[in-house]
Amino acid sequence: MTSQPLHRLRVLFLAALLVLGGCATIQPDPLPSWSDGPARQAIVDFVRQTTDSASPQFVPPDRRIATFDQDGTLWVEQPMYTQVMFALERVRDIVRAQPALAGEEPFRAVVAGDREAMAKFTERDIFKIVAVTESGLTVDAFAEVVRRWLATAKHPKFQRPYTELVYAPMQEAMKYLRANGYRTYIVTGGGQQFVRAFAEQVYGIPPEQVVGTMFRINYETRDGRPALVTAPELFFLNDKGGKPVGINMVLGRRPQAAFGNSDGDQQMLEYATAGDGARLAMIVLHDDADREFAYGPAAGLPESKVGTFTQALYDEAKKKGWTVISMKRDWKRVFAFEK
Amino acid sequence: MTSQPLHRLRVLFLAALLVLGGCATIQPDPLPSWSDGPARQAIVDFVRQTTDSASPQFVPPDRRIATFDQDGTLWVEQPMYTQVMFALERVRDIVRAQPALAGEEPFRAVVAGDREAMAKFTERDIFKIVAVTESGLTVDAFAEVVRRWLATAKHPKFQRPYTELVYAPMQEAMKYLRANGYRTYIVTGGGQQFVRAFAEQVYGIPPEQVVGTMFRINYETRDGRPALVTAPELFFLNDKGGKPVGINMVLGRRPQAAFGNSDGDQQMLEYATAGDGARLAMIVLHDDADREFAYGPAAGLPESKVGTFTQALYDEAKKKGWTVISMKRDWKRVFAFEK
Repeated sequence: MTSQPLHRLRVLFLAALLVLGGCATIQPDPLPSWSDGPARQAIVDFVRQTTDSASPQFVPPDRRIATFDQDGTLWVEQPMYTQVMFALERVRDIVRAQPALAGEEPFRAVVAGDREAMAKFTERDIFKIVAVTESGLTVDAFAEVVRRWLATAKHPKFQRPYTELVYAPMQEAMKYLRANGYRTYIVTGGGQQFVRAFAEQVYGIPPEQVVGTMFRINYETRDGRPALVTAPELFFLNDKGGKPVGINMVLGRRPQAAFGNSDGDQQMLEYATAGDGARLAMIVLHDDADREFAYGPAAGLPESKVGTFTQALYDEAKKKGWTVISMKRDWKRVFAFEK
Repeated sequence: MTSQPLHRLRVLFLAALLVLGGCATIQPDPLPSWSDGPARQAIVDFVRQTTDSASPQFVPPDRRIATFDQDGTLWVEQPMYTQVMFALERVRDIVRAQPALAGEEPFRAVVAGDREAMAKFTERDIFKIVAVTESGLTVDAFAEVVRRWLATAKHPKFQRPYTELVYAPMQEAMKYLRANGYRTYIVTGGGQQFVRAFAEQVYGIPPEQVVGTMFRINYETRDGRPALVTAPELFFLNDKGGKPVGINMVLGRRPQAAFGNSDGDQQMLEYATAGDGARLAMIVLHDDADREFAYGPAAGLPESKVGTFTQALYDEAKKKGWTVISMKRDWKRVFAFEK
């Protein structure tokens, strides 16, 4: 009978161990930068429904694909897309190396800082400026140029590197999805080679999970070695209806979840949500002039040069049950550098 | 002192357990269909060198990429590429559904079985025939058509389904590479959507790991739902210099190993082997008329309509240290259905 109290002690000790063990596995909040509300809830519900094997909405791991637009969805796109900022700054170096370009528009206007001429740039002008920064370079050399620029360039408003202007809540959402077996893809209207240069370091997204706009690339010989060299010719525009096509080209599956912020993303969201079972579609609304920027008709503001979130898209989102993410209301913090 | 013999027994017993445990983890031969010889050895050495973390040639898991041509490298390509066989057989059904095509070449010749006209088909004629089987269909509907055809079609020589005419040694090589952390990609001159329809079932290769020739695909609305619909227009030819470009487009990394069988694969092998560290490049030589087919100049035979393995490529392979796989000498068995 003397062993009875000892036995009890042992049981209590083991129970305590189990509890402690249980405590040790309690996860910290995976979405600390999100306020409680419908946006956060939509993500949590979607993950629970699609990863619980007892759920009728269960999605097998190989089909767990989430696609993210980049500019305005994962990082700041104002006052201009980062790749265009990069191109405008690079043009000076390029004109120095190729003086023949100095008298040629649109390069002359950029080098001269002719704001009046630059304000009138057409899409074709912008394309020429972006193309000249990449064309003639091997894909490896271009990636190096991008990385060197990102290491020193600063955003005009925030005076911080562009790679710090990534939205903390979206980083958390990507990590949370990945922790639940989702593969996260960037599907951007920006250049595939531009985004691949930093996507792994900044987002943890490897090159094979970056779908973007493509220049024509040719297989050539450089210094006696085979090389992939970019030509100044658009090969594939990964925007609007191009996004589902680009997704099919690179990954060949319909995404289960898609995140965007403009009418360039509408078709990707349509395509993702047209599949069976639980689907998640989310659109970032830039309504926070204090912490980031406020722009676009859906925020009750004039049409913006980038990231067009029209009233029609807002109405469509409401009709289809897509979740609009209000930066102001749904995000406790926008950037990781905030306290 | 009496415990000494008991202790000895225990040590012996534990030692025996360790040995048995060791035996239990001895792997069965991963390449049973390969004869001993330089080809088999090249694969084994490459895997050992690149996966042993103590090796100077160690390759981190995310860079372990192996690319495989399909026709003539993974399965039979004689007397004609399987996709062309598919297209020739499908044309009858298509002409029945679209009688306007009945009088139009090259469709008339196929339906009439006009061998004389068919012998004169140009590449453009073949392209038109292949395109008509895919164009106007959604990518999902086309995949279904391919799978239905493969379920019943038989190869004219072997009288077996095409999907049984996969080379057992190459299946083993792919599995062996995957077991060692490699991702295996198909990089084919054949259609990306055609190969994706069966690659997962036949090779264990998911859609995002199939790079192929692409028709233009458009985002449209079908029956009120968004759909990806193929147009009869070539978008990207994944052959010769196109293969490294297609690899960059879809996966954005240089392969560590590449397997091919013709001059359509030469640039892919060049590109793979131009990188640093241990690289593996292998070319299948079809020199086995008894078990499969023998064809092409490198086998001392006339130029073949498919899978051109020229003498120049053979010489290049020898010069560069690429391994030529002799089907006759290096493969104990060609197909899984052999005893």
